[in-house]
Amino acid sequence: MSAETKPVHVGAVVFPGFELLDTFGPLEMFGLLRERASITMVAETAGSVRSNQGPHVVAEATLDGSQGFDVLLVPGGWGTRTLAENPAFLAQLRHACDRARIVASVCTGSALLARAGVLDGRRATTNKANYKWATSQGPNVTWVPQARWVEDGRFFTSSGVSAGMDMALALIAHLFDRETSVQVADGAEYAWHEDKAWDPFAKLHGLA
Amino acid sequence: MSAETKPVHVGAVVFPGFELLDTFGPLEMFGLLRERASITMVAETAGSVRSNQGPHVVAEATLDGSQGFDVLLVPGGWGTRTLAENPAFLAQLRHACDRARIVASVCTGSALLARAGVLDGRRATTNKANYKWATSQGPNVTWVPQARWVEDGRFFTSSGVSAGMDMALALIAHLFDRETSVQVADGAEYAWHEDKAWDPFAKLHGLA
Repeated sequence: MSAETKPVHVGAVVFPGFELLDTFGPLEMFGLLRERASITMVAETAGSVRSNQGPHVVAEATLDGSQGFDVLLVPGGWGTRTLAENPAFLAQLRHACDRARIVASVCTGSALLARAGVLDGRRATTNKANYKWATSQGPNVTWVPQARWVEDGRFFTSSGVSAGMDMALALIAHLFDRETSVQVADGAEYAWHEDKAWDPFAKLHGLA
Repeated sequence: MSAETKPVHVGAVVFPGFELLDTFGPLEMFGLLRERASITMVAETAGSVRSNQGPHVVAEATLDGSQGFDVLLVPGGWGTRTLAENPAFLAQLRHACDRARIVASVCTGSALLARAGVLDGRRATTNKANYKWATSQGPNVTWVPQARWVEDGRFFTSSGVSAGMDMALALIAHLFDRETSVQVADGAEYAWHEDKAWDPFAKLHGLA
């Protein structure tokens, strides 16, 4: 039996230089919930947004005007370096986080959440290759160096890129149940790393 | 040392109802090659294209007018059911395949390649949950039921959704070298299933 009775509304934040898999890995998993989830792409301005890898996606709604999502997904990518110094964007992001039921970040998306101030006093993780920069964005955050993802209250933060898929499945288990996540992973022919402590990439980058 | 001296040009085919991760998993891996790869999104008509999960992407070029790509990537998704019965699209796809150096499909993308006739006499694989439908699209193809991906000449075909990422890394190793693929996988914090015979999903669907 699933805990959620209404479709889960996922708002995915995109910005110039967002990372493709940070965004579309989790959205694939939510998409496989079919009628139990809906997805809206949100950005500072509606319209075409260029990813870090080149392909453009279409933002249908603005971050500022967006409703309160069940899950607000914040990806990373090189664009975070610029946005971390953009107070107007960070204010909008903070406001969207305040209205969301659950906030989930992938990779350096947690650096943006940290700069928006919403992770203060919380445990979080981030990309391991850019760990020094990302963690420097949140001096009041308890950064966890070795974790596939970290859950603290309504905040789910994952490690780099692919980790977002494992976190999304954990989030689906949190919202529905484990059986639903297993079905979604099987549907995507994905080998879920279900243990959030699994993180060989921390060691690779001298963090464990 | 990498075999490729020029940037690899990847053309990613999109169509209404394409699967997000089939497309953006491999494109993330190629994107991590940075200046060694470039990506162009192609469709029957340039402009916004809706994915199976809802989000829209922007096709910059038409399939018909596209140049010969080093890698032509063909995703799956529910949209393949309609396109498999669309002779105009299949003719364009065949022409694009003829001009491409390597053709790579994910999931039911191989059903489209089969219907376009380009897999005749070749070994290939496809999604395991929709194996019966997909394989019925190519009576002259030697379908391999248990494989993460199959390589036959210039054709790389992968199993469902997530398998595209493992195949993309194999393709990068083929074009460059294994070390490059390991670096890309590490950059994406992705645990590469490097063995193309690894396929627990075949058993799950009674195919092995």
